[in-house]
Amino acid sequence: MKEEKIKKINGGVCAAQGFLAAGVYCGIRRNRTKKDLALVYTPAPANAAAVYTRNLVKGAPLAVTKAHVDAGKISAVICNSGIANTCCAGGKELAEATCALVGEALGIPASSVAVASTGVIGQPLDLAPFRRGIPELVAALSKDGTPAAQAIMTTDTINKQAAVEFELGGKVCRLGGMAKGSGMIHPNMATMLVYLTTDAAISKEMLQRALSSDIESTFNMMSVDGDTSTNDMVLLLANGMAGNEEITCENDDFRTFMCALNTVNIALCRMLAGDGEGATKLLDCVVTGADTLADARKAAKSVICSSLVKAAMFGADANWGRVLCAMGYGGASFDPEKVSVVFRSAAGEVEVCRGGSGTDFSEEKAKEVLSANEIIIEVSLGGGSFSAEAWGCDLTYDYVRINGDYRT
Amino acid sequence: MKEEKIKKINGGVCAAQGFLAAGVYCGIRRNRTKKDLALVYTPAPANAAAVYTRNLVKGAPLAVTKAHVDAGKISAVICNSGIANTCCAGGKELAEATCALVGEALGIPASSVAVASTGVIGQPLDLAPFRRGIPELVAALSKDGTPAAQAIMTTDTINKQAAVEFELGGKVCRLGGMAKGSGMIHPNMATMLVYLTTDAAISKEMLQRALSSDIESTFNMMSVDGDTSTNDMVLLLANGMAGNEEITCENDDFRTFMCALNTVNIALCRMLAGDGEGATKLLDCVVTGADTLADARKAAKSVICSSLVKAAMFGADANWGRVLCAMGYGGASFDPEKVSVVFRSAAGEVEVCRGGSGTDFSEEKAKEVLSANEIIIEVSLGGGSFSAEAWGCDLTYDYVRINGDYRT
Repeated sequence: MKEEKIKKINGGVCAAQGFLAAGVYCGIRRNRTKKDLALVYTPAPANAAAVYTRNLVKGAPLAVTKAHVDAGKISAVICNSGIANTCCAGGKELAEATCALVGEALGIPASSVAVASTGVIGQPLDLAPFRRGIPELVAALSKDGTPAAQAIMTTDTINKQAAVEFELGGKVCRLGGMAKGSGMIHPNMATMLVYLTTDAAISKEMLQRALSSDIESTFNMMSVDGDTSTNDMVLLLANGMAGNEEITCENDDFRTFMCALNTVNIALCRMLAGDGEGATKLLDCVVTGADTLADARKAAKSVICSSLVKAAMFGADANWGRVLCAMGYGGASFDPEKVSVVFRSAAGEVEVCRGGSGTDFSEEKAKEVLSANEIIIEVSLGGGSFSAEAWGCDLTYDYVRINGDYRT
Repeated sequence: MKEEKIKKINGGVCAAQGFLAAGVYCGIRRNRTKKDLALVYTPAPANAAAVYTRNLVKGAPLAVTKAHVDAGKISAVICNSGIANTCCAGGKELAEATCALVGEALGIPASSVAVASTGVIGQPLDLAPFRRGIPELVAALSKDGTPAAQAIMTTDTINKQAAVEFELGGKVCRLGGMAKGSGMIHPNMATMLVYLTTDAAISKEMLQRALSSDIESTFNMMSVDGDTSTNDMVLLLANGMAGNEEITCENDDFRTFMCALNTVNIALCRMLAGDGEGATKLLDCVVTGADTLADARKAAKSVICSSLVKAAMFGADANWGRVLCAMGYGGASFDPEKVSVVFRSAAGEVEVCRGGSGTDFSEEKAKEVLSANEIIIEVSLGGGSFSAEAWGCDLTYDYVRINGDYRT
């Protein structure tokens, strides 16, 4: 019933009151036709919550952002694409200098700026392009979130934005966001770059609780290629401008807020997975009938991570044995003889496995179902009442092409 | 010094005294030009040790083989390719009937026969081809192991055999084997199909100890695509015909035997990884300077499992940041700022990372080094004294092509 109150609207990181954004080309990339620097700004400082990559090798900006988020409110986010500022001497100093430049340009403390970088690992990043770009960004700030969403793209083919509207105590609130990510996506407790903004009033503690809880069923249930990036983060800013009574505990308003957050995050997940490097199809694996939530999640995620399942889906080949195989090594507990598998898409559905054995399905029909650009792999484990959903994409020639020579 | 006593020789599963083998086409596959049934036989019943896949979804033959191996000595191995006998009603009964047919044809108990199947999951397997093929196999038994090695191949492009000679107490012993496997290779405590035979006398208990220990540094350190098959097994038979004093404890003879086993298994691993589906290059990751053996193994395996590293190697792109990234999420403990990475091949070597940051290496030279068909990725973690080696292959257009439509 909560979901009914959540209305999808156009927009992204500027959907919520008070948030402005801009994106420009500043010279980090060689390709001048692609924006490479983005800024998000809220004149009303925002409570901030964040989750970061668990990769042991971390991008230098993450430590700087974490220190700023932990210390107080956040007023701006600066993010470049092209170079990851990771595995380079002086990376932390550069990230700090970037925050200082943004602080000067906006007249805010450097410590209220979050910073991020995405792109090639191990190449040095220079401050000069930031010096040029930041004043331009400040001059270009507007309610249009698209230039910023474009500026954080790397191998993404589309920019990714989503937003919703909902009410808290009679006040209209909005929550929206933008995301980038196409390869090296296999989040672990955090994910690619996702910036979420809301005008709802919510305490820093409850904001972090909402984010940490939600990513377990959204960004952490998505994978493009099994590689967890060094620079992933999800940042959620709440500036309180909607004027609702601040959420400070797990009340009805908090649950409504969680639904709003979940709606935006699932929309972004589907865009990220569907735009995976080289992908031609979005894969959506829905597992039901698991004995525990953990089993359901492990099974769903193992299916969408399997290179063999991904390649079969690319070829529209109903090779369901690979689905069972992937679940079998994924660490979930289930009885193989109770499993059934259905492939479903806009072109119809076909049950390919029942009671752990193949059905006498029509290969022709299966080919038709699997030729759609969005495939649902529905697995029933025939056990308990837990379920989970995971998102991924097919493995294609283009994934190999893109990653065989990413740097040049 | 032990290694010096181990001499590589030609041959495979028939290198050791007393072992005979054969391979024929019996009608399981549609393609009549590809053998699909293999038999290995030793008139002197052999002590047997085995390791099996840890996939929860297991091929029916595995349970039958395990019961026979656990119960006593093994005299014969029957293995078909084309259909996996997995996720099909009546699979166990079919595997038992196969053993019975072999038992009748050779005049040995059905319980002394090990059975295996490899191929497509979920398709029914019929007994009729076995009725035809088994008498043919028995008639064709010889000291040439190649037809059997060919008959167990699926998408393999070459048959895989290796053998060594060594001495135990003045007696010449031999150990050899054959392997199949090309995709769905990411063993977990067991691996694809590997049949090893030796004429050394060694107790069943010590044989199992040797095998279980060795696979940790050989087959479990290899990956083609991260998919752990449902049907993997390694079976090691020792018929004692060399006449050495039986090994019953961890003495010098046991250590020599371990070296012999390790030499054959590493040779098979390299063949398996280098012939991974669609592979153009063998990847060999050597990690040194780890604080523990577990850290060294996790780091090495994570590198050769990374789709992004694999695609970069295909493209001969020295994108070393992906090597660091893969180690970072692989669960090993290390200090990123102490890591160095060298790419090495027959074309030379190039240090691309030192102290966690990129060196000023020649891209041209790196391209040359990475264009060889065997690449060594040498990583020093700059910590303790533990090391490990892992084997994999590049990710190519052909992997996608092969697996986009494997069944048809």
